[in-house]
Amino acid sequence: MADRQCAVLGAGLRSREVTLERRSRRFSSDRLERLARRLMNASTLCAMATAWPGGRPHINHMYFAWSSGFDVVWISDPDSRHSRNLSVNRSAAVTIYDSHQTWGGFDRGIQLFGTAGAVSGAAAEQAERNYAARFSSFDQAANSYPFYRFRPSEVKLFYERVLGGGTLVTAKVTGERLAWARTEVFA
Amino acid sequence: MADRQCAVLGAGLRSREVTLERRSRRFSSDRLERLARRLMNASTLCAMATAWPGGRPHINHMYFAWSSGFDVVWISDPDSRHSRNLSVNRSAAVTIYDSHQTWGGFDRGIQLFGTAGAVSGAAAEQAERNYAARFSSFDQAANSYPFYRFRPSEVKLFYERVLGGGTLVTAKVTGERLAWARTEVFA
Repeated sequence: MADRQCAVLGAGLRSREVTLERRSRRFSSDRLERLARRLMNASTLCAMATAWPGGRPHINHMYFAWSSGFDVVWISDPDSRHSRNLSVNRSAAVTIYDSHQTWGGFDRGIQLFGTAGAVSGAAAEQAERNYAARFSSFDQAANSYPFYRFRPSEVKLFYERVLGGGTLVTAKVTGERLAWARTEVFA
Repeated sequence: MADRQCAVLGAGLRSREVTLERRSRRFSSDRLERLARRLMNASTLCAMATAWPGGRPHINHMYFAWSSGFDVVWISDPDSRHSRNLSVNRSAAVTIYDSHQTWGGFDRGIQLFGTAGAVSGAAAEQAERNYAARFSSFDQAANSYPFYRFRPSEVKLFYERVLGGGTLVTAKVTGERLAWARTEVFA
């Protein structure tokens, strides 16, 4: 029994050492941007969290396009619940993942946290270019919905095959660049 | 020009009549439950919106299983951001969709709105049975995370091939039953 306890304790210590070592792991901006771009392309659908007036969480999913600065753009009815939420509170969060992943395999996905709202003028034209480039059947002449843009201030990358199992890497977004902020390991 | 205006106006009126007719469309509980079950099975990953203390929206995605009453269950580290959010504010929203849909095709998905938290006792055992039945490589003996359960009070079904284009059907959840509440059309 004592042996078993020591063995378990030893395993626990080794596990904690590995976790601490991985938590201190930093990543270059170039590498994070390369990985983030791959993760943004994993799906043309994303889910977005917004807040009702009063703070209750809402969720929707939608087709999106994105720009080199990790801005997410889409078209929406201004009367939809998420559009109305954003007109009062611009705070939002987006997650992008391939839904065909398998439990127990190497998982991946990206979460983005920032603010969003309807855009006009040059920003709307840029959003339209991004959107039309991604969705070839999109016809702006037939579109009556405004463009919306989400701008992240922080992203979280989950890419187990590359970053390690249970590892979440957080980066700050400045312009088109990502800067490593921290590495968390859920062992 | 006058002709064109009349033609456009006529189309607009017809479109509004169709929209109003579709908005009054009700669906039986049996039919909604059958559709909802199909939509819940579209993916083993879902996205969940929770609120930070203060109300800022958070989002994550995770593997989930579900029970006949449309409860969503999963395992999570209690230290993860979404678990910590739920320990303060149980309000949550979940969306489930197949990410391999094509822009311009018949889209589908389900959104669920309710409350969530860690479960223990009989509820945790039920969650474990649902989870183990869905994920054959899940090993409860090796699992150190608690089970969480989300219970919806309202669901929104989007199933264009069956319900019609741009049609969102809202239902209230009572026990294991769905009751039609309203039909919205985003034409």
